[in-house]
Amino acid sequence: MSLSTSVQEQVSDTQIITASCPGGLGTVDAVTAYLYQQGCYINEINSFDDIDTQRFFIRIEFRPDRQSAFNRENFISGFKTKAASFDMDWTLTRKDDKAKVVIMVSKHDHCLNDLLYRYRTGDLKIEIPAIISNHPDLEELAKWHGIPYFHLPVNKDIKPQQEAMIWKIIQDCDADLVVLARYMQVLSSEMCQRLAGWAINIHHSLLPGFKGAKPYYQAYHKGVKLVGATAHYISDDLDEGPIITQGVETVDHSHYPADLAAKGQAIECQTLSRAVRWHIEQRVFLHGEKSVVFAK
Amino acid sequence: MSLSTSVQEQVSDTQIITASCPGGLGTVDAVTAYLYQQGCYINEINSFDDIDTQRFFIRIEFRPDRQSAFNRENFISGFKTKAASFDMDWTLTRKDDKAKVVIMVSKHDHCLNDLLYRYRTGDLKIEIPAIISNHPDLEELAKWHGIPYFHLPVNKDIKPQQEAMIWKIIQDCDADLVVLARYMQVLSSEMCQRLAGWAINIHHSLLPGFKGAKPYYQAYHKGVKLVGATAHYISDDLDEGPIITQGVETVDHSHYPADLAAKGQAIECQTLSRAVRWHIEQRVFLHGEKSVVFAK
Amino acid sequence: MSLSTSVQEQVSDTQIITASCPGGLGTVDAVTAYLYQQGCYINEINSFDDIDTQRFFIRIEFRPDRQSAFNRENFISGFKTKAASFDMDWTLTRKDDKAKVVIMVSKHDHCLNDLLYRYRTGDLKIEIPAIISNHPDLEELAKWHGIPYFHLPVNKDIKPQQEAMIWKIIQDCDADLVVLARYMQVLSSEMCQRLAGWAINIHHSLLPGFKGAKPYYQAYHKGVKLVGATAHYISDDLDEGPIITQGVETVDHSHYPADLAAKGQAIECQTLSRAVRWHIEQRVFLHGEKSVVFAK
Amino acid sequence: MSLSTSVQEQVSDTQIITASCPGGLGTVDAVTAYLYQQGCYINEINSFDDIDTQRFFIRIEFRPDRQSAFNRENFISGFKTKAASFDMDWTLTRKDDKAKVVIMVSKHDHCLNDLLYRYRTGDLKIEIPAIISNHPDLEELAKWHGIPYFHLPVNKDIKPQQEAMIWKIIQDCDADLVVLARYMQVLSSEMCQRLAGWAINIHHSLLPGFKGAKPYYQAYHKGVKLVGATAHYISDDLDEGPIITQGVETVDHSHYPADLAAKGQAIECQTLSRAVRWHIEQRVFLHGEKSVVFAK
Repeated sequence: MSLSTSVQEQVSDTQIITASCPGGLGTVDAVTAYLYQQGCYINEINSFDDIDTQRFFIRIEFRPDRQSAFNRENFISGFKTKAASFDMDWTLTRKDDKAKVVIMVSKHDHCLNDLLYRYRTGDLKIEIPAIISNHPDLEELAKWHGIPYFHLPVNKDIKPQQEAMIWKIIQDCDADLVVLARYMQVLSSEMCQRLAGWAINIHHSLLPGFKGAKPYYQAYHKGVKLVGATAHYISDDLDEGPIITQGVETVDHSHYPADLAAKGQAIECQTLSRAVRWHIEQRVFLHGEKSVVFAK
Repeated sequence: MSLSTSVQEQVSDTQIITASCPGGLGTVDAVTAYLYQQGCYINEINSFDDIDTQRFFIRIEFRPDRQSAFNRENFISGFKTKAASFDMDWTLTRKDDKAKVVIMVSKHDHCLNDLLYRYRTGDLKIEIPAIISNHPDLEELAKWHGIPYFHLPVNKDIKPQQEAMIWKIIQDCDADLVVLARYMQVLSSEMCQRLAGWAINIHHSLLPGFKGAKPYYQAYHKGVKLVGATAHYISDDLDEGPIITQGVETVDHSHYPADLAAKGQAIECQTLSRAVRWHIEQRVFLHGEKSVVFAK
Repeated sequence: MSLSTSVQEQVSDTQIITASCPGGLGTVDAVTAYLYQQGCYINEINSFDDIDTQRFFIRIEFRPDRQSAFNRENFISGFKTKAASFDMDWTLTRKDDKAKVVIMVSKHDHCLNDLLYRYRTGDLKIEIPAIISNHPDLEELAKWHGIPYFHLPVNKDIKPQQEAMIWKIIQDCDADLVVLARYMQVLSSEMCQRLAGWAINIHHSLLPGFKGAKPYYQAYHKGVKLVGATAHYISDDLDEGPIITQGVETVDHSHYPADLAAKGQAIECQTLSRAVRWHIEQRVFLHGEKSVVFAK
Repeated sequence: MSLSTSVQEQVSDTQIITASCPGGLGTVDAVTAYLYQQGCYINEINSFDDIDTQRFFIRIEFRPDRQSAFNRENFISGFKTKAASFDMDWTLTRKDDKAKVVIMVSKHDHCLNDLLYRYRTGDLKIEIPAIISNHPDLEELAKWHGIPYFHLPVNKDIKPQQEAMIWKIIQDCDADLVVLARYMQVLSSEMCQRLAGWAINIHHSLLPGFKGAKPYYQAYHKGVKLVGATAHYISDDLDEGPIITQGVETVDHSHYPADLAAKGQAIECQTLSRAVRWHIEQRVFLHGEKSVVFAK
């Protein structure tokens, strides 16, 4: 037991730094030497330098050494200069900080229920300032968790206004991440662009196998022996953004579409929550139409 | 240990009967009552009646009871009448009989090597009367296993003649099954029709995800997080026949196309040999563009 | 889409018959011939005859043919005689009937939450007449689902009385199944015997790997690369009853005990709900210290 | 295609450095700063600092920058001093260098066959200077691959002499790794100590589930629903050394011991070859009774 306590104590001030930039000599050293100089103790590094596109990615978990007087502001201003000289995109996050996640849903509640359970028990270190839906069905579930529920019906005529309201809520919440937990509406191209790279969608299929609607019907008619789900970032094309993670399960001839859907929904939950976890733990980097993921 | 011996002895005369026909009252009884009447002891039944298409499928492993004098010829002629009245397709196979399998390859040997190992050790109960290839590369491997190797080069001009030679070999061998273990040529429509439903192809991708050539390059450029393989029967369209089984493995950003291919090849071997096993154990039924598989 | 409706309609009066008895000629026919005679249309059969122990198991899903006038009482009384002559244990269940499941918990809510979600959405066709706990913690969760919650604290001195109260609740509910969804108390030998074969426990480990307490600590100290969970029936020895199903996930050196537990809990939920589903769908047969499971 | 060629070219002089030492400020910098100073371009880093035991592990793939004149001798002598000041264990390996692997077998050939296939096709970058067996059965297989086969029968009386001969062969070959690919003999305590940490054993079970002999019989009698295999380093206790990786597959009641063994053997092959790959790619660190594995 003493292990657990000791681990807890030591990781309580853990920080995560991520960076990516064009590949080149010294990119690693730019980060590691700085951490050393600032008296930071490194728990874990993952780095990757893509030979194909010549781009470098690094993620480091570290904690201030007990003797050192870590000053976050100084740390940041000091690193800015260094990062600029390497043309680095970078982030610094306290591991214990809770990301603010806005969730969008329609009527299906399996993904929402799973996320709320992980939120409620602290398994996912997130706050949920808002749940947005085009249907009223899931309000009670939101309320029981004490989360504001915004029912914003939509049809073709009022779509621009509805999306404007959604966007306002997301901004008012100062959201770090938007999760489309089976929000069954196609977003406008403008909305997609706004959310590109920081909104995660769950596609109820193994992309690119069955794009579009009713993938379980498509799968049934093809007689596939595996069903799956894909969590990916939104991009211009809703079903085409960078894939974060995918899940799969075996099925057979006795699975009618409803059975495929039931098995599929379990995979959707697992796949989506895994993607959210990796995103908020800063394990995922956008990399053109793909992603770099330091999985755990 | 005595268990194993006893099991061996008792299953040595095990027979497998399969049947399929339009769904209707009494289809099961047509088979099970007949087995009872013939003094046959049933080890295992799997049946399925497809509500969607109203078609019935059954597979039974049985053995003649020790007291009964089982006569195969009588059994068959007796069942013929019954089967006809239900418009049944049916088969009767001794479990220990070895299927004659003709294997077709090009240069890649991973699937062939895996099949030969399972053949050599008796894991797959098959004979391999011929290996056919459009390249000479794998002849030594065939020879070490004492299997005739037919090197039949092919190009556009001689394709009809080459396929005629292939077809002759298959017929001369009296083959029960043809396995395309990475035979990298497109077969003519005529050849496909001849082999439809009794030739198994391994597609190095999770169909219908990446049809066509170089699926690992396609997968790389899409940044997928899973690669897989699909074993399916040949139909008119080489990449579209009824799926028998599929396999999958996780990958990440650090997998370049060659790494994806290496992981993929392991899955191809496993998936193809599983499909062959289920086919020769009479576990697979064609069912329009799909299959019914009583897996083990 | 019409498929789904049609499927629904036809399966609405689906029945499940299961039987097991000493192996012998005619065991299958005893059931299938009777169904035929009663005008029953068979959707699916699974049978298995254990060569080792000479015992026979069968499960059939069927529906009365539209033309036939199915009378449940007549069916039952007719089958009783037949079953008796084969010394059969047997059950007849309407597929749509909801099993009455009493759930026992302590403080951990992950398994309970998962079961309640599947109950609420109809994914598991069950009623939950009572949740029993030795702690008050999960009462609110039960209440939100409208389920009576019985808080029955326990210590060494009052254990017999507490178990007597539990037993009374189970009997008053006329429970079909008891699920120990992380009820962290050892049951008395008397209680185990009462529940043997119809109470499912989830053991937070791959049995028989890490029996007893704190399996995730044991796993951590052994440096295992897989963690798992085991759903099994209760027997005299709480950790030793017949296994129904097991689940597993990969882990690595960076997983401290708390991380192992987090991954493990996800597997516990999936494994337990799968066991409950198979039990209530009559897919599981007790078979000495083991089980026969016709999985889907 | 150009990608593949370019990747190939650039990785052709890739080096792998690994190090481990007591945790402390500057351990990472000791390596990364040195690489930068030596003009080395880093492809990939994995590091881990165990909070429980306060030990640090790092693995880096790097290549000399094109402009820099990399001198291996200078690199090594320069790093020695640095490493000493941190009390580091460390290794430097060229990625393309082939490890010399001595394989020990008895009569079962499934693991040997799998390793030889991966050796023959270059999938595993190894040389196999010797195959040692206490039985003559697998000599032909070795010969076809052009590998010396040493048949060293053993019984209680001559065990010391036989092990001395084994040890001499291993030394004469200058082996980097010994693989016990189902060598069904218990090694003496002295032999175990000599091989501790650089001999990999495949245990045909999910340790610590079924230690000792005939695990598939044990598994059968317990009615487990999963079988698995464990690849681990040898330590004093043959079945207890640090686990490298484990594999698993589902089974059911219809799997008699022979069926379990057949499924198990497929997992043994996969698990053992994965462990060998990770070992020779310098991905595995001994860490007391456990291992740290930077898996791919």
